[in-house]
Amino acid sequence: MAAIMTIASGATWQEVAADRQKYRDATLATIQPAIPDIPSPSLNTISIAKDVLTAEEIKITESKVEELAPQLAKGELSAVTVVKAFLRRAALAQKLASGTKTSTNCITELLSSRALERAKYLDDYLKTNGKPVGPFHGIPISVKEHIGMKDLDNNAGFIGWVGNTAPQDAHILQILWNAGAVFHARTTQPQTLMHLETSSNLYGVTTNPYNTTLTSGGSSGGEGALVGFKGSCLGVGTDIGGSIRSPAANCGVYGMKPTALRLPVLGWLGPAAGQEQIVPTIGPLSTSLEGCKLFIKTLLDSKPWLKEPSLLPFPWKQEDFFKGRKLKVGVLWDDEVVKPHPPVTRALKQMVDKLKSTGNVEVVEWKPYKHDLAWEIIANLYFCDGGKEESDLIDASGEPWRPLSKHILKNPHVETHTIPSMYKATVKRDAYRVEYAEHWNSTATSTGPNGELEGAVDVILCPAGPGVAPKIDTAKWWGYLSQWNVLNYPGLIFPVDKVDVIKDGGIERHSPRNETDKENWELWQKYGAEGYKDAPLSLQLVGRGFEDEKVIQAFEMIQKETGVPFV
Amino acid sequence: MAAIMTIASGATWQEVAADRQKYRDATLATIQPAIPDIPSPSLNTISIAKDVLTAEEIKITESKVEELAPQLAKGELSAVTVVKAFLRRAALAQKLASGTKTSTNCITELLSSRALERAKYLDDYLKTNGKPVGPFHGIPISVKEHIGMKDLDNNAGFIGWVGNTAPQDAHILQILWNAGAVFHARTTQPQTLMHLETSSNLYGVTTNPYNTTLTSGGSSGGEGALVGFKGSCLGVGTDIGGSIRSPAANCGVYGMKPTALRLPVLGWLGPAAGQEQIVPTIGPLSTSLEGCKLFIKTLLDSKPWLKEPSLLPFPWKQEDFFKGRKLKVGVLWDDEVVKPHPPVTRALKQMVDKLKSTGNVEVVEWKPYKHDLAWEIIANLYFCDGGKEESDLIDASGEPWRPLSKHILKNPHVETHTIPSMYKATVKRDAYRVEYAEHWNSTATSTGPNGELEGAVDVILCPAGPGVAPKIDTAKWWGYLSQWNVLNYPGLIFPVDKVDVIKDGGIERHSPRNETDKENWELWQKYGAEGYKDAPLSLQLVGRGFEDEKVIQAFEMIQKETGVPFV
Repeated sequence: MAAIMTIASGATWQEVAADRQKYRDATLATIQPAIPDIPSPSLNTISIAKDVLTAEEIKITESKVEELAPQLAKGELSAVTVVKAFLRRAALAQKLASGTKTSTNCITELLSSRALERAKYLDDYLKTNGKPVGPFHGIPISVKEHIGMKDLDNNAGFIGWVGNTAPQDAHILQILWNAGAVFHARTTQPQTLMHLETSSNLYGVTTNPYNTTLTSGGSSGGEGALVGFKGSCLGVGTDIGGSIRSPAANCGVYGMKPTALRLPVLGWLGPAAGQEQIVPTIGPLSTSLEGCKLFIKTLLDSKPWLKEPSLLPFPWKQEDFFKGRKLKVGVLWDDEVVKPHPPVTRALKQMVDKLKSTGNVEVVEWKPYKHDLAWEIIANLYFCDGGKEESDLIDASGEPWRPLSKHILKNPHVETHTIPSMYKATVKRDAYRVEYAEHWNSTATSTGPNGELEGAVDVILCPAGPGVAPKIDTAKWWGYLSQWNVLNYPGLIFPVDKVDVIKDGGIERHSPRNETDKENWELWQKYGAEGYKDAPLSLQLVGRGFEDEKVIQAFEMIQKETGVPFV
Repeated sequence: MAAIMTIASGATWQEVAADRQKYRDATLATIQPAIPDIPSPSLNTISIAKDVLTAEEIKITESKVEELAPQLAKGELSAVTVVKAFLRRAALAQKLASGTKTSTNCITELLSSRALERAKYLDDYLKTNGKPVGPFHGIPISVKEHIGMKDLDNNAGFIGWVGNTAPQDAHILQILWNAGAVFHARTTQPQTLMHLETSSNLYGVTTNPYNTTLTSGGSSGGEGALVGFKGSCLGVGTDIGGSIRSPAANCGVYGMKPTALRLPVLGWLGPAAGQEQIVPTIGPLSTSLEGCKLFIKTLLDSKPWLKEPSLLPFPWKQEDFFKGRKLKVGVLWDDEVVKPHPPVTRALKQMVDKLKSTGNVEVVEWKPYKHDLAWEIIANLYFCDGGKEESDLIDASGEPWRPLSKHILKNPHVETHTIPSMYKATVKRDAYRVEYAEHWNSTATSTGPNGELEGAVDVILCPAGPGVAPKIDTAKWWGYLSQWNVLNYPGLIFPVDKVDVIKDGGIERHSPRNETDKENWELWQKYGAEGYKDAPLSLQLVGRGFEDEKVIQAFEMIQKETGVPFV
C-alpha cells in the first residue's frame, strides 16, 4: 500500500482529497467482475441494479439479515458468494455514472481482499466445525469511516486528519467480528461529522439513491445511501443529533439510535472527545428491523461494559412489554417550531388512521414541550469551546468550509463556555430533562403499587424531520431528531411510504412562525412533490431513556397491526 | 419561626453562625423529658446513654432497622415511642457536655415537632388501615443538612448560603416519606462539603463518639457520629470522595456509596452543580447492613428514574450471585501510595485469616493499579474551575478557611480548566477506567460463552482509609475511598474490630514513599494505639460499577462465614 498523502507531509488539501479518491477508486477496481461505468437512467437509481447484477446477486443483496443469516449458518449460502454480491452492489452504488450528479457517492473504500479472505475463513470454519462462528456468520456489514479499522485511515471528514490510521479495530467491530461479520465497505461522512447531510472536501456530496437531487442525509449518509441502495444489509452509524436517523429516514431504511452509553464506542474518532454534555451513540442502519435488533442484541450479549466501563451494564431485555394490554402511542404531529412538509403529515395520518382501526393500539395526541428550548440547549452544548476544535481542524488544512459546517458551528446558540458557564448550561439541560419526564409522567392515568405509571404513553410516534430527504445543503432544522438526543431517548426510524406527485401535489398555506420555519416551508413551495419525487417517507418511534427494547417491540406490534411499510 | 439571620441581611459571619447555633439549641430544648447537661466520663461517650436514657429508650435505640420495622408494622411499638427515644438519644449525642471537647456536636437541628406529628399520623394510619404505610413505617431517619427539607435552611456548610431555605423536600426524602419514614434530625457537614472530617464555622468540629479527640469523619460526619452514638439507626449521607464511607468507617457503622446515578439526588444543595466529571452519590449509613440494604432497595423499588431522568433505570437485582460457586475476594493491603497504620493491617489480616479458613471463599491478592494517578485525576476533576466557586463562596461571607478546605481546594492537582483542557482530563479519566477494567478482567481464568469473566475476582476487600478515625484536621489522604469514586465502583463499609492498646501497641518501621505517606506514618508514631484508643476498625468491600447488590450479597456471605464484627 502506498503511503497516505497528508497535510503533515506537505500536500495541499486538494492533493490529499485527490489521493483519497484515487485510493477509493483503486479499491473499486478490485471488484470482479468489474462494474461498468453506466449512467443511471433516472434520478431514481434503485432499478439500475437489475441491469448490472446477476439474478443471484440481486436475490442475495435484496435479502434481509434474518433471511441471510440462517442460510449462511447452515452453509446453504457461502459467505464468499454473499460478500461478492454485496461488494458488487456496493461498487455499483458508488460507481454508477461516476463523476456525474447521479452517483450516490457513498463509499470511501471497498474492502474486497479483507472481506473475501474473511469470508473464506468463515466458509472453512463452518465446514470444519459444523457450526457458525456467531449470529452474524458471513453477514456483510458496512462501517462509517470514523469508526476505526485496523491500519486504515480514520479522518472523520477532516482533511487535516487524513493519515490517522487506526491501531486496531474499534471495540464494536471486534465484537461484530467475533460474531462472524464480514466488513466489506467503509462509507462517507460530512466534514465535522455535524451535518444532517454528507458533504466533504474529501469526497464531495453523497446523494440519495431514490432521487439523486436530494441528500442521503447524514452524518451517516454513506451508510444511508449504501443500505438504501442495498449495497449493504446492515451498517454501523453514529448519532449525536440525528446522524443515524436522518440517513435512515431519507433513504427508506430502518435505523436506530439507542440510548447513549449502551453500545461500545471505544476506537471511534471524532472531535470533542471528552465532551459529556451530549453523549453520542453508535447504532445500526439496516434493510430490516430484525437487522437492527440483532445488531443491538448481539452487542449487548457480549457484555461490552466489561471492557468499556463507561457503558451501562443493561443486558438485552427479553420481557413482553405489552402483555395483556394495549400499546399506547402518543402522536406528535408538529414540534411547533418548524411545521413538517405535507407528505410527512400525510404519512403520519396514514399511520394514525391504520392504528386507530386496530384493537390493540390506543392513539393519543402528544403535545410538544418546549422543543425550541431543547434545540437552544443542545446547539449550545455541542460546542462548549465555541466550536474552536472543529474550526481549527477545518482551518488547519486550508480546506473550505462546507455550508452546513458553518450552519451548525456558527449557530446562534454557540458560545465559548467557561467551566462555570458550562456547568450552568448543564444544569439547564437537566432541568429540561426533568420537565420533559414530568410531561411524560402526566400522561399516566394512575400510579401502580411499585411506582408504575399506569396508562402512560408507551412510545411517541413523530416525524423524522421537517420534510423528506432535503435538497442538497438545505437540511437545517435538526429538532425532530436532536430533540431525542438532548433527552437521551432512543429513536427508531422506519419506512412508511414515498413522496407521490399526485397525493402530495396539493397546495397548503402556512404562516411562518420563525425564520427556520419560513425557510423550510419555502422549500416545499419551491420544489413541491415533483422536486422530492420518489423520496422515502419515514417516521420515527421514540421511547423513554433505556427503553430501547420496548421501542423495538412496540414497532413490531405496530408493523403487525398495520402492515407498514405501505409501499 | 424567627427570620434566619444571613449575610445578605447584613449580619457578620459570626452573627450568622451564632444565630444558627441558637436555633439548633432551641430545637434541642424542645426534647421532653429534657436531657441534662452532663459531661462524658471519658473520651469514649458511648456508655453515657445508659446513664441518661430509660431502659426502654436504650432498648429501642439499640435496635436495628430490621428489628424495629416489623414491630412498628404490627403496632407492637408505636412510632411516637420510637421517635421520642431516638430524639432523646440524638439530643444527648449533641448535648452531652455541650460546649466541651467531648460533645460529638453532630446535630444542626432536631425536628421534634415535625417528627412527633408524623409519628402520630403513622400510628393513626396503622390503627385505621391495619397496615403500615410502607417498609419504613415509623423508622426515624436522620438527614445530612445539604439535602433539602421543605422550609428549612440549606447551606452546605457555607455561611454565605445560610438562608437558602428549600422549597420542597428533596426527591429522596419524598420517597422515604412515602415509605413511612419519620425524619427526626438534621446533621452537620464541613465547610465546602469537601473534607473527610466535619469542621465548619457554623457549628465547629464534630467529633467521634468512640473517642472525642478524633474526627467522626466527613463530609457526612454528623451522620457518622449520630448513627455511631445510636441517635439514629439510619441516616442519609452523600459521597464524592469518601463522604459516606469515611464517617461510617470512623464511627463503626455500616455505610454504602452506591454506584453513581442510581439513587435520587434532586433537591440537594452543593457547589459545582452541573459538574459531571466525577458524579456524587447519595447513600445510607446505618447500625446494620440490613438498614443500608432496605434503604437502597426501597428507593429503587419506587422507580426514581421516572421523575429524575438522569438516574439509570436499574431495578434492585434479586439474583443469587454466588450460587454453586465460591466467592472470590481480592485483598488490597496497601495502595502503594500511603501505607495504612498497623491496626488497619491487623483488621485486614484478621478478616483474611477467617476467610481463608472457610470453604466458601477464595482469597487472592489484589495488586493496586496506579492509585496515585487515580488521585491526580480526581483531585483535578473535582474543581475544573480551579475551585473558584467554593473559594468565592467561603470568601463571600468573610468566614475563615477551615484547614481542610484549604487542603483540598488548593491541592497541587487543581487547575483552572478551559473547556478543551477539561475534555482532555476527562479522556484521561476514561482511559484510566478502561485500564482498571482490564486489570480486573485479567483476574479471570476463562471467558464464558456469553462473555462472562469466569473465575474473576468478585469483590475487593480493602482498607477504608490509611488509618482509623484521624485526629482533628489530619484526614488528608483520600485515596482509599476516592479511588472508587474515580472508577464509579460501589463501596460498602463494615465494622470489624476496634483499636486495642495491647494488640496495636507494637512498633513498626516504615520508610516513607512520599510526603503524604510520611505525614500519615508520623501520626501513628506520634499518637500510637493509645492516641486512637477505642477507635472503630472498619474495612471496605468494593465491586465493579453497578454491582451494588453483588457487593451487599458478598458481604452477607462474608458475615455469615466469619461472624464479623469481632467486637
